[in-house]
Amino acid sequence: MRLHTEHDLAFEQPVALTTPQVHYLRNVMRSSPGDTVILFNGRDGEWSARIETLAKNAGSLISTEKRRDQIQELGPWLLFAPIKRTPLDFLVQKSVELGAAALQPVITDHTNTARIKVDRLRANAIEAAEQCERLTVPEVHDMEKLSVLLENWPVDRHLIVCAECGKVQCIEETLRAAPDNTKWGILIGPEGGFSSSELDLIDSYSFTSLVGLGPRILRAETAALAALTCWQMTVGDWRNIRS
Amino acid sequence: MRLHTEHDLAFEQPVALTTPQVHYLRNVMRSSPGDTVILFNGRDGEWSARIETLAKNAGSLISTEKRRDQIQELGPWLLFAPIKRTPLDFLVQKSVELGAAALQPVITDHTNTARIKVDRLRANAIEAAEQCERLTVPEVHDMEKLSVLLENWPVDRHLIVCAECGKVQCIEETLRAAPDNTKWGILIGPEGGFSSSELDLIDSYSFTSLVGLGPRILRAETAALAALTCWQMTVGDWRNIRS
Repeated sequence: MRLHTEHDLAFEQPVALTTPQVHYLRNVMRSSPGDTVILFNGRDGEWSARIETLAKNAGSLISTEKRRDQIQELGPWLLFAPIKRTPLDFLVQKSVELGAAALQPVITDHTNTARIKVDRLRANAIEAAEQCERLTVPEVHDMEKLSVLLENWPVDRHLIVCAECGKVQCIEETLRAAPDNTKWGILIGPEGGFSSSELDLIDSYSFTSLVGLGPRILRAETAALAALTCWQMTVGDWRNIRS
Repeated sequence: MRLHTEHDLAFEQPVALTTPQVHYLRNVMRSSPGDTVILFNGRDGEWSARIETLAKNAGSLISTEKRRDQIQELGPWLLFAPIKRTPLDFLVQKSVELGAAALQPVITDHTNTARIKVDRLRANAIEAAEQCERLTVPEVHDMEKLSVLLENWPVDRHLIVCAECGKVQCIEETLRAAPDNTKWGILIGPEGGFSSSELDLIDSYSFTSLVGLGPRILRAETAALAALTCWQMTVGDWRNIRS
């Protein structure tokens, strides 16, 4: 059992459970006071904690031992046009597993879904982070227009744009050509692709690179996961092999 | 509209539609005789075809023009322990998009799902191949025990085994170290991991390599898609950039 908390974590720190956490521990995991839970908050590393109280609508833990020091997770920001609910849930869950540092829904000219439940995405991101043993939960931002995001983009962060047309580069070469410690973003277009004016706009910024992902047509969520995998393999932490 | 057919394809070849294809063209796409459909069969390339008849329960096309020559698609075989229905559907769809050449469900010591609807996986594979513009549909095999698959494995096909423990190698280095034109398989373990006797068995064959996929815990379907992406990027066709 591994839970994310907003509380500070330190030795013998009391931690109140949220209502969903109480429900999860009582009704799903059938836990009892004395059982051990693992906690992380994105700031203080990973801690073992003991369930102190677990009543119907409230519960508390006390942290007992630090298991891992906090590390910076330097994954790319992932920008994506919203898609239907099931593949979107999948995209969020898999992006967390594959190490995205932030998730940014983007409105594009061909975006079909005007609204998006950001709270749902945040809950999915927390659950995925709990399960994949990350020490952070990626921030999920509110939806924003592509033009606004590009206008305010930090120029020291290279933005890889996955496109099906235009003058695309090989993603691996683009990643390898950048200096070490480059910060990255990955932008996945909508199902209908970018409009030609969007491609012109993207091309007008020096921090962007249009890349291709092979000869088959990938759905948006597949492209997102494939691009994150390329990033991890080429410049990410996949060389720190789990043993 | 792009459809897979079992029929041979050649100039002015009549092609009968299956009942689901008739339903799809009439009720989903609202097609009429005279409309154009794209056809492929995995053998004769990709063809334009014209709808000749489209009645309630039957219909026919006639192929009119070859659009693409058949090419060999040399992707890896993907072996996976069955998982729950929704992530399994996702795994099949994404594996087709990412170029797997065959799909093989595997029974392992820690496999939870003893039964699997192979017909459902085949239907998903066809639909995904139609949508991602592949010229082949990967073969979906019946479920088989891991020990039987290893015993009958073609020794000239290198099998990458994605594992969370054991002495794992970096997947990229493993892929790059092999000679050009190596044939590949990718084996993804069950949610509970391989048993220690399975790891010993895998290790006893010279055609296997245990590889890791980074420090986070990946779900089985994420591991499958990530490994296929690594394959495409390192030794596959992602350098043939779509333009």
